[in-house]
Amino acid sequence: MDINFFMPTKVVQGKNCIEINVDLFRSFGTKALIVTGKNSARLNGSQRDITKALDIVGISYTIFDKVMSNPTVDCVFEGAELAKEQEVDFIIGIGGGSPMDAAKAIALLATQNITEEDLFQGKYETKALPLVMVPTTAGTGSEVTQYSILTNDRAKTKQSIATSVLFPKLSFLDAKYMKDLSMEITINTALDALSHSIEGMLSIRSTDLTDSLAVESILKLSDSLSVLKKAKEEQSPQIPEKVREQLLYGSMLAGIVIAHTGTTAVHSMGYSLTYFRNIDHGRANALLLPGFLKFIEKSDFAKVKTILTAMKLNSNDELDILFHELLGERETLTPEEIKKFSGIAIQAKNIQNSKIIPTQNDLEALYTQSLS
Amino acid sequence: MDINFFMPTKVVQGKNCIEINVDLFRSFGTKALIVTGKNSARLNGSQRDITKALDIVGISYTIFDKVMSNPTVDCVFEGAELAKEQEVDFIIGIGGGSPMDAAKAIALLATQNITEEDLFQGKYETKALPLVMVPTTAGTGSEVTQYSILTNDRAKTKQSIATSVLFPKLSFLDAKYMKDLSMEITINTALDALSHSIEGMLSIRSTDLTDSLAVESILKLSDSLSVLKKAKEEQSPQIPEKVREQLLYGSMLAGIVIAHTGTTAVHSMGYSLTYFRNIDHGRANALLLPGFLKFIEKSDFAKVKTILTAMKLNSNDELDILFHELLGERETLTPEEIKKFSGIAIQAKNIQNSKIIPTQNDLEALYTQSLS
Repeated sequence: MDINFFMPTKVVQGKNCIEINVDLFRSFGTKALIVTGKNSARLNGSQRDITKALDIVGISYTIFDKVMSNPTVDCVFEGAELAKEQEVDFIIGIGGGSPMDAAKAIALLATQNITEEDLFQGKYETKALPLVMVPTTAGTGSEVTQYSILTNDRAKTKQSIATSVLFPKLSFLDAKYMKDLSMEITINTALDALSHSIEGMLSIRSTDLTDSLAVESILKLSDSLSVLKKAKEEQSPQIPEKVREQLLYGSMLAGIVIAHTGTTAVHSMGYSLTYFRNIDHGRANALLLPGFLKFIEKSDFAKVKTILTAMKLNSNDELDILFHELLGERETLTPEEIKKFSGIAIQAKNIQNSKIIPTQNDLEALYTQSLS
Repeated sequence: MDINFFMPTKVVQGKNCIEINVDLFRSFGTKALIVTGKNSARLNGSQRDITKALDIVGISYTIFDKVMSNPTVDCVFEGAELAKEQEVDFIIGIGGGSPMDAAKAIALLATQNITEEDLFQGKYETKALPLVMVPTTAGTGSEVTQYSILTNDRAKTKQSIATSVLFPKLSFLDAKYMKDLSMEITINTALDALSHSIEGMLSIRSTDLTDSLAVESILKLSDSLSVLKKAKEEQSPQIPEKVREQLLYGSMLAGIVIAHTGTTAVHSMGYSLTYFRNIDHGRANALLLPGFLKFIEKSDFAKVKTILTAMKLNSNDELDILFHELLGERETLTPEEIKKFSGIAIQAKNIQNSKIIPTQNDLEALYTQSLS
C-alpha cells in the first residue's frame, strides 16, 4: 500500500466566509494583487467582499482584471510584470479556473525568472508569492491544486505548470457567488468536476485515499446533477443554494483528487476540442467521458462499477443517457479533425496517467464514437 | 454547508519510504534532534533508517531518547533545552503517540518562551521548529495532527497543546516497523484509532468531509480488527504485512479526522483511567466507546447506524460482543473512583465536542456501565 498525500491549502467553505474570516489575510503581507476576469467577479459580489476584507485589515491592492477564458502565456507574463512593478506580497485569484490558473502562473513568474520557452518544462525553483483563491464556479478545483493550465499557442493546446509551491495557502468557498450562473455554465462546470473525480479513479496514480475522496465527490456531484437535470427539463432557472454548496464542495474534493492522480486521456483529448473548436472545457470532457469509461470497463470492470454505483447508475448505457440529457445536441468532428486531434492528444503528458493507455487508434475511435 | 479543512502535512506511506525519499530531508536544515523512547525505535529499525538517511544527505543529529509512556511536562522542557543548546534546525519524532507528542511540544518550546503554567492555555506564537514524524504504532494519528497530549501532574490528567504550527511538515509511514509489535499493543492502538474516527463522527465539529474520511478509516480498521481477532483466537503471533499497512493507513486517516473534529467525552473519560489506573490509552477509550455509542444512539440513531454499517455490524450489541472479545476481562472501578473520574472528565475541553454533551450524572452512568 503506497499512499502519498499532500494538500496544504486551508479550505474555508460557508456562507459569508470571507467576511467572517478577514483576519486570515493578515499573515500574507500588506499589498495584494487581485487577479480576475473582466466582469464576473464584480457582478457576483466576490470582488467587493475581497476588497472590503482587505480594507478592514489594512491591506492595499491592485487589480489585474484582464484574464480571458483559457488564459494565454502573454496574459500571465503581463500580470507578473504588474505584480513585480507594484511589489505585491501575495496574489488573490477570483473567478473560475481561468483567473485562478492565471493567478498561479503570475505568483510563480513574479518571483522567478522563467522564459516563455521554459514555462511548461517542469523546472521551477521552490518559491512563489502566496496565493489566496475565491472560486466563483464549481468545476475546476484549481483552488486546491498545484496546477496552472494555460493556453500555449506555440503547442496549439493547453499545457500545465505543476509545482507544489502553487498550492494556494487559503481558499474561500462561498456558493452565494454562483447564484446567478446560467444553467449551461452550471452544468458544464459540474461535469468538469465530475470528470476530475472519475478520471482520478481511472488514473494509475489513484490510491485508496484518493478513491475515497473521489467517491464522496461523485456522490455529491451526482445528487446535484440530478437536480440540475430536473431544473433544466422544467426550464426552471432557480438552483437551490444547498445544491450550489454541494457542487462547490464536490468540485473542491475533485480538485484534491486530481492534485494527486492527475487527469487522464479525457483531458488530453478535450483540450483540442477547446482549442480548435472553442467547446467549453467542462463540456469537452463530458462529451468524451462516457466513451472513455467504456474503454476502461473492458479491463477494469470493478472500478467502473464503483464509479457507476456512486452515481446510482446500473450501467454505462444509463450514463450515456444521463450525459445525453445534460449535454443536448453534440458537436461533430470531421475525419481530418479526428486525425489531427488524436495526434496532439497522444503527446499530452496526462494520457500516461490512464489506467489503460490508449493508442492513437484508440483515441481516433474514442473521438469518432463521441463526436460523430 | 460549512467546511473547514486544513492538514498541511506531507504523508508518504510505503515500504522503505524513508530510504526512497531521503531528499525530502534536505529542505529542513543541517541539524536535527531525534526525539524518541528508550528502546523501541532502535529495535524496530526506524531509528537506523532515519540516521542512515540523515547521513546520506549530510544532516547531523542529536538523539533525545528519554521520552516515557504518557510523557510529562518536565520531559518536554528537558528536550527543548537540548534542542536550544544544540541549535537544531528541526525535530524528528520516532515512536508511538508519546514520542511524537513530546517531539511536538519540544518543537514549540524550543522557539517560544512558554512557562509551565501557560503550556496548556492555548496562547502560542505562530512559530515552531519543523517536525518530521515516523509513527511506529498504528493508533495515535499524531503524525497528521496539530495536537500534543502530555501528562500534566498539576491537573492530574492528560492535557493538550493544540496549534496549527504543530502540524508535522512530513510523516513517513512504513508498516515494517510494526512487524514485532505484540498482539496486545496492536489491538490497543487499533482501537485507539477506531475510537478517533468514531468520536470524530460523534463530534459537533464533524462535517461531510471528516465523516467521509472517518468512514474510510473505519472500513479499513474494522477489516483489520477482524483479522486481529481471529489471530488472537488462534494465538497466532503473525499479523500479515497488508493488515499492518491498513492499520497504519486507517490510523492516519483517523488522525486527519480528529485534527478537525477533536475527540469527545470518550477521551475525556479515558484520561483518568490512564492517569490513575495506568490503563493503556487505546484500551481506555475502547472500554468506554460502546457505552458512549449507546448514549448517542438515543438522540442520533442515523449517525450511529452509519458507524455500525461501516464496521459491518447490525447493532450496538454486536459491537459490545466484538469489543468484549478484543479487550478480554475488564478492569472495574470503585464508586469513589467513578465519582472522582467523572468530576475530572466533566471539566475536560473535549467533552464539549460531543454531539450530545453528557452531564456529570451521565458520565457516572457511563463509567458504571463500562467498568463495573
